[in-house]
Amino acid sequence: MAKHGYDSGRLNLPFVGICTFGKYPYIEDWDQIDADVAVMGAPFDFGTQWRSGTRMGPRAIREASTLFSFGHAGAYDFEDDVTYLDPAKVTIVDIGDADIVHTDTIQSHANIEHGVRKMLQAGALPVVLGGDHSINIPCINAFDDQEPIHVVQIDAHLDFVDERHGVRYGHGNPMRRAAEKPYVTGLSQIGIRNVSSTAKDGYEDARSMGSDIQSVRHVRKMGIEAMLKRIPEGARYYLTVDIDAFDPSIAPGTGTPSHGGFMYYEVLELIDGLAQRGEIVGMDLVEVAPDYDPTGSTSILAAQLLMNSIGRILHHRDV
Amino acid sequence: MAKHGYDSGRLNLPFVGICTFGKYPYIEDWDQIDADVAVMGAPFDFGTQWRSGTRMGPRAIREASTLFSFGHAGAYDFEDDVTYLDPAKVTIVDIGDADIVHTDTIQSHANIEHGVRKMLQAGALPVVLGGDHSINIPCINAFDDQEPIHVVQIDAHLDFVDERHGVRYGHGNPMRRAAEKPYVTGLSQIGIRNVSSTAKDGYEDARSMGSDIQSVRHVRKMGIEAMLKRIPEGARYYLTVDIDAFDPSIAPGTGTPSHGGFMYYEVLELIDGLAQRGEIVGMDLVEVAPDYDPTGSTSILAAQLLMNSIGRILHHRDV
Amino acid sequence: MAKHGYDSGRLNLPFVGICTFGKYPYIEDWDQIDADVAVMGAPFDFGTQWRSGTRMGPRAIREASTLFSFGHAGAYDFEDDVTYLDPAKVTIVDIGDADIVHTDTIQSHANIEHGVRKMLQAGALPVVLGGDHSINIPCINAFDDQEPIHVVQIDAHLDFVDERHGVRYGHGNPMRRAAEKPYVTGLSQIGIRNVSSTAKDGYEDARSMGSDIQSVRHVRKMGIEAMLKRIPEGARYYLTVDIDAFDPSIAPGTGTPSHGGFMYYEVLELIDGLAQRGEIVGMDLVEVAPDYDPTGSTSILAAQLLMNSIGRILHHRDV
Amino acid sequence: MAKHGYDSGRLNLPFVGICTFGKYPYIEDWDQIDADVAVMGAPFDFGTQWRSGTRMGPRAIREASTLFSFGHAGAYDFEDDVTYLDPAKVTIVDIGDADIVHTDTIQSHANIEHGVRKMLQAGALPVVLGGDHSINIPCINAFDDQEPIHVVQIDAHLDFVDERHGVRYGHGNPMRRAAEKPYVTGLSQIGIRNVSSTAKDGYEDARSMGSDIQSVRHVRKMGIEAMLKRIPEGARYYLTVDIDAFDPSIAPGTGTPSHGGFMYYEVLELIDGLAQRGEIVGMDLVEVAPDYDPTGSTSILAAQLLMNSIGRILHHRDV
Amino acid sequence: MAKHGYDSGRLNLPFVGICTFGKYPYIEDWDQIDADVAVMGAPFDFGTQWRSGTRMGPRAIREASTLFSFGHAGAYDFEDDVTYLDPAKVTIVDIGDADIVHTDTIQSHANIEHGVRKMLQAGALPVVLGGDHSINIPCINAFDDQEPIHVVQIDAHLDFVDERHGVRYGHGNPMRRAAEKPYVTGLSQIGIRNVSSTAKDGYEDARSMGSDIQSVRHVRKMGIEAMLKRIPEGARYYLTVDIDAFDPSIAPGTGTPSHGGFMYYEVLELIDGLAQRGEIVGMDLVEVAPDYDPTGSTSILAAQLLMNSIGRILHHRDV
Amino acid sequence: MAKHGYDSGRLNLPFVGICTFGKYPYIEDWDQIDADVAVMGAPFDFGTQWRSGTRMGPRAIREASTLFSFGHAGAYDFEDDVTYLDPAKVTIVDIGDADIVHTDTIQSHANIEHGVRKMLQAGALPVVLGGDHSINIPCINAFDDQEPIHVVQIDAHLDFVDERHGVRYGHGNPMRRAAEKPYVTGLSQIGIRNVSSTAKDGYEDARSMGSDIQSVRHVRKMGIEAMLKRIPEGARYYLTVDIDAFDPSIAPGTGTPSHGGFMYYEVLELIDGLAQRGEIVGMDLVEVAPDYDPTGSTSILAAQLLMNSIGRILHHRDV
Repeated sequence: MAKHGYDSGRLNLPFVGICTFGKYPYIEDWDQIDADVAVMGAPFDFGTQWRSGTRMGPRAIREASTLFSFGHAGAYDFEDDVTYLDPAKVTIVDIGDADIVHTDTIQSHANIEHGVRKMLQAGALPVVLGGDHSINIPCINAFDDQEPIHVVQIDAHLDFVDERHGVRYGHGNPMRRAAEKPYVTGLSQIGIRNVSSTAKDGYEDARSMGSDIQSVRHVRKMGIEAMLKRIPEGARYYLTVDIDAFDPSIAPGTGTPSHGGFMYYEVLELIDGLAQRGEIVGMDLVEVAPDYDPTGSTSILAAQLLMNSIGRILHHRDV
Repeated sequence: MAKHGYDSGRLNLPFVGICTFGKYPYIEDWDQIDADVAVMGAPFDFGTQWRSGTRMGPRAIREASTLFSFGHAGAYDFEDDVTYLDPAKVTIVDIGDADIVHTDTIQSHANIEHGVRKMLQAGALPVVLGGDHSINIPCINAFDDQEPIHVVQIDAHLDFVDERHGVRYGHGNPMRRAAEKPYVTGLSQIGIRNVSSTAKDGYEDARSMGSDIQSVRHVRKMGIEAMLKRIPEGARYYLTVDIDAFDPSIAPGTGTPSHGGFMYYEVLELIDGLAQRGEIVGMDLVEVAPDYDPTGSTSILAAQLLMNSIGRILHHRDV
Repeated sequence: MAKHGYDSGRLNLPFVGICTFGKYPYIEDWDQIDADVAVMGAPFDFGTQWRSGTRMGPRAIREASTLFSFGHAGAYDFEDDVTYLDPAKVTIVDIGDADIVHTDTIQSHANIEHGVRKMLQAGALPVVLGGDHSINIPCINAFDDQEPIHVVQIDAHLDFVDERHGVRYGHGNPMRRAAEKPYVTGLSQIGIRNVSSTAKDGYEDARSMGSDIQSVRHVRKMGIEAMLKRIPEGARYYLTVDIDAFDPSIAPGTGTPSHGGFMYYEVLELIDGLAQRGEIVGMDLVEVAPDYDPTGSTSILAAQLLMNSIGRILHHRDV
Repeated sequence: MAKHGYDSGRLNLPFVGICTFGKYPYIEDWDQIDADVAVMGAPFDFGTQWRSGTRMGPRAIREASTLFSFGHAGAYDFEDDVTYLDPAKVTIVDIGDADIVHTDTIQSHANIEHGVRKMLQAGALPVVLGGDHSINIPCINAFDDQEPIHVVQIDAHLDFVDERHGVRYGHGNPMRRAAEKPYVTGLSQIGIRNVSSTAKDGYEDARSMGSDIQSVRHVRKMGIEAMLKRIPEGARYYLTVDIDAFDPSIAPGTGTPSHGGFMYYEVLELIDGLAQRGEIVGMDLVEVAPDYDPTGSTSILAAQLLMNSIGRILHHRDV
Repeated sequence: MAKHGYDSGRLNLPFVGICTFGKYPYIEDWDQIDADVAVMGAPFDFGTQWRSGTRMGPRAIREASTLFSFGHAGAYDFEDDVTYLDPAKVTIVDIGDADIVHTDTIQSHANIEHGVRKMLQAGALPVVLGGDHSINIPCINAFDDQEPIHVVQIDAHLDFVDERHGVRYGHGNPMRRAAEKPYVTGLSQIGIRNVSSTAKDGYEDARSMGSDIQSVRHVRKMGIEAMLKRIPEGARYYLTVDIDAFDPSIAPGTGTPSHGGFMYYEVLELIDGLAQRGEIVGMDLVEVAPDYDPTGSTSILAAQLLMNSIGRILHHRDV
Repeated sequence: MAKHGYDSGRLNLPFVGICTFGKYPYIEDWDQIDADVAVMGAPFDFGTQWRSGTRMGPRAIREASTLFSFGHAGAYDFEDDVTYLDPAKVTIVDIGDADIVHTDTIQSHANIEHGVRKMLQAGALPVVLGGDHSINIPCINAFDDQEPIHVVQIDAHLDFVDERHGVRYGHGNPMRRAAEKPYVTGLSQIGIRNVSSTAKDGYEDARSMGSDIQSVRHVRKMGIEAMLKRIPEGARYYLTVDIDAFDPSIAPGTGTPSHGGFMYYEVLELIDGLAQRGEIVGMDLVEVAPDYDPTGSTSILAAQLLMNSIGRILHHRDV
């Protein structure tokens, strides 16, 4: 019954069926993950400093991703003349969400970290759907027994606050927390612009701790190729994409939008280049807040970027 | 990992996890249905005569139903002092959606009918989430090899059009199609009000074909008990609930709302009484159109009514 | 080509076609009005004291009214067993909108008054779609050469402010302006509740100028029949309905909602009774603000009430 | 310049001016509170179990409350023939918001408690705008040096969970926390219905700890007067209103709506009666989530109820 | 009365009046079309594969087009120093909608085809408002007795699926259907990007059947002039614009948005150039879904593009 | 209590606190303005010709501006390596709104003019938040006792209508009114495009009265530097920004959007350059209509632009 296809089985149009990521199989038992890529939701939003609601991000991205389950024969991109995500070659699973405990940041983060460890142990590329950007903290924590990583952040905000009023694990802190790790060899912080919770000392700290900070205008001026060359070649990259790196015109559905951001192909080409420059070993996409996305365009952007990123990461691995 | 509970396993808050109906297990293989109740989506909306969009109804109801997955120990209702849906006693599954084929009404209906037959063959109570009201036609078709049924319709509109411009399977036709079946012994049409696609001759035909037609004001005047007494006792009931039976104040998210409708407890008490008066052997809930439901209250109403109806149907069976 | 019907011509479903009121013919030349009922929009909103946007009310009501153009053979109401608005007996036209001049209240009101005079001169029942409640002022002005009228207002607010900061023609003033007219014999002000722009002295003035003021709770306590008996029998009634008389649950799309309002059948039954108690010689429905009506339920309410009111007014005339 | 009035100074229409509560003065220095009533926001939402967003509740209620700043001469209610909130007799201030610290429930709650203590120390009636219902916990804490109180809760949910996965201060816990206090003499829990995070044992615990639990249907059956008689007479009441006590038809803008709730006058009359039966010494109104309130009706309901409650509390004190 | 002007007659502001396209006259009798351009709606949406709702597209575009009825003296564009759509030179009419029959794709398409034939017979340029892209199929059919045409498609998706599960007339099929016609001499498919329902074989088929496929990035790289040169010169062009060719930032209100699309002037300049390169003999604009367009920007884009395209087509004809 | 900071006092996150502009102090007494910059709202919208609702613009911009109150130590921009708006150096106040009188354009404009005069008398840079663009008329009037000014308008529409149907003070007239002033030495009108209420003669009049008119495409072709050079150097500039100068992709929340507009940095760089080229002595930002801005992106754009413009104006003054 459940076979899908153009000729037999089910037609399985995008609006039909249960909303797992890309309509890929749901693996409830985290000891049974057996896939190239595993997708997990981290619906945590207590770390936000203005509008909340990113807890519903994973659900919205999953629903939007069904639009991209068109391709029973994989995702053919005529510009590249490549069929990405060929089901005969690639295995992707959705392992559901990390367990979130209301009022309790520490326990919620621990549960996210547990999920990422499970995906890593299974040998799957972990792809985590936020939630606010603080969920990057447990994601990075889970790499403490892996080979060193270079963090590539695509974001409007530097997120490099050390501690304020005791807060160390909010959505303004993750890049500082990452930079402190001995196994994080450096950071590329791309798309940074305008005022945010990080003050001047944060920028100085970031640079002194090994960060390269580039704005949208910087990237446009130098070009994607030049930007890629600033990133250490041949490294293992952990990629963290804050949806507010994109322009509010295409990503209004986020807590703290910042005008003057990236458009779609700028980021896709950056990720495509990154996947060729080294190995992307983990990825999160955060800060999608569906309550501010009445048209769905933000969730669709997140889903479109994730599907295409995963496709390109796997494709360039094969080469 | 996936065990849920208040003390151990996962806390599993409503906003966490994949959106199957009530977070019950998803059964992809329709030959493996083994449950007291099976829920299937029928995301079909080509039968609508004004606003479309009910194809997204099953997804919206599933998401809303997660709010009612609070009860790890079942759903305790202190007014009745009953714990409904005790997981130790009750098995419910979500079998996903019937396969819908765009532009093709006949094939889409056939696929819905196939799903209902599978649920009936498995001995599960079929609960179908629309989609527009035309999806009731294949649902009723699937009962052609079952014992006779009495159809109880809760709706604003009579839906008793025979044929117009060749259309026999739109959302204005289902009750006429049902009334034509030899195994449909009669109809109770409750909540009917205001102008609709059914003209005067439709009302006359309905009555001549065994229908009892009552408006919201009629029901309020006579009371729920009296209304129940008009329904044949001890019968096998097929229950079809059009969400527009409810007042637009609580169910704005539907294609053709009609002011002056039912409030929540009126319908719940009617269904509770029906479940005691005979056996409810099938159920559909149709016409939820999430695009017109920005607050989610319509989807929440649908989910709340379904969870409570299923709970009461199973509870009264036990007695 | 354009004939509509169930058997031949066009099916003409509600979602098809140009949005005149009820899909009735548009008469652009106001010297050619020849109908029982003429509908005109008055898209004026400079008189509002909180949220604006009622200028788009006529458009929204017209679009919603297409839902009620179902009945090629008239609007059959099975509760009354009456077919209202039989096209063989009744002629209704839409004459478009009065010309509104931005920044200029006096000229805009004059243009509305001109339109009402044209409808009256043609012998048609004038039905005016607001716009804010100040548009009632020119409507009443246009009756200065007609037989005396009794004004029946269904509204949350008394709208009886005399003058403040020079303002005499805002949406808080119309009932005061009406009460001043020698040809207005009295007012019935129904549904009034909660704080509004009218202060205590306004209530005292209203009563001294011949007004009977009743709240929603008053009406519910006495019943519709008793309320009707308080209105002078056999008079010529001008009926002005502010959509905020209704509860915000069904009429959120208005500038100044007030909780605790009427539900649909309460008002319909009041109007039905009024149409039997005397002659309704003019009607306006005001304060629909579609920007606050994302579900469309307010516009649908306005359209449903207007279609049913017009049907009943014409029906009771015939008797 | 800033004087407001109908004849001189400023007209000060509702849509004009800075959005403090009711446009009452903002007192930034909490050592300078000198008023009959002080209003404080508590924009905390990490305690929610489904949809978040109540952090924006205080802002939305303040904006909506400007609609009710119509009355330069107080709020005249013609049904009671009373002018409430006469500015010559009554002093109300807005002290802004408690300082909320993201990710940190304990510190945020402490800051709320601090604000309530300041209002109590100043001799003002504290009125707190949530935020989620967990903010009731610090509010009640602040009464630990006051005379004993009886808690009257108007809510859909019992909120009587003791502890789960370590959580004791979420929005499912406040009534349990209150019941534990030696200075809380009892609880009246009104409007409770349907399934929620509180399981059967919670109801048993509540009753054993001195709670009287009544559903909406219970209250409707017995009447408001009878309900009031169940509440201890002559006590000092702390009143906590969860907006989800109301029906989703008028209060869709909340995290966990529950169909079958109260309408406006049911609650207003209950509060009016309570203000006569004893002394209301503190009040909070919680769970307004503006992201789910596109029409503004929920915020307007909250503001209308608060303005009218405050008016009645002060009026009955004078008697 | 109805004359409009800046000095006399009516001011006729955009928010005033019945919503025909551009407020041009409505011609109900299709045997009386006498105009340079005739606009018809085709509110059909059963052909969609994800979100439906394009049936309301024609209504939304008509309402938005009233914004562009500003110019009583035509539409002056200072960049070109041209007054387009001079009412003294140009005649445009709105003929309403094709009759759509719910559940019946074949009959609905036949009714659309009938309307296009009527416009062609009258010698008017047919401009059709979708509806989903499947409505292009009957539009092209209606040209079977005309001189050969070259189809220029501006779209995100190739829409070149032959047949799946029996579907040949859905919104993924129109370009394939067009390519099969003997009187279609070739296709230019512009803006194509990302994954869609067309798989790799569809691209191959398209090319083999005479199609030139260019992505947004291709067009940007080569420039508008170079793109125009790829289109056969001096031909008769049928122009079909899918609103999802545009970027979701300006056209979120569509069923299947695809990030990375065109901005406004790119498409306007392409159409302006096309109108100079040959003769545009027919046009449709499809896939506007107002339910996903809460700001109205998509409908405004559609209306702005149509008004400007029509203006330029007529202007360049004169030259 | 009220001191804010990262180490002591209050954390004061953006979502906490009363919504004055940028959370700067509210000065109710206009004789006590003592600041570098004073911000006033002008919530007037009777001058609009299509969608109304800009009366709520000031409230929406104030709320959005709280997002940019992040910086306790000023607003650090790493691209410029400048800390703007250092609280130790800069004083900004919010003086609330001008008093608007419904139905009365002349009095409302007079009240706006009064406010601007008060700010000028206090020596503060006046920044006015609209409201529709007609509020620019009283703003310019208030400069009649100041040194001459050159008006820089950033807008989609020329707004150069002289008089129609007696209207001289609507939102299509302000630049004409400004050009008539003896103390206005010229106008730079930037971003103008597409059809609007200004006809061909308006463009001719504008040029003859000293205006330089440039479209978005003109500016992009020549570059920001070249555009700046067209503006008289060393002058006193009054800057009026209509939010519809921006592309609808980022500014959908406005009455009359026009596709093909500016993106964020284009306008910021233009204003930054202008602040270096001469002295900006007054500024208004108009036409934000929050009802068409469900995501908040338009209000955020307005707030982001204002905060950054004010910062740069003050910074370049220091140099």
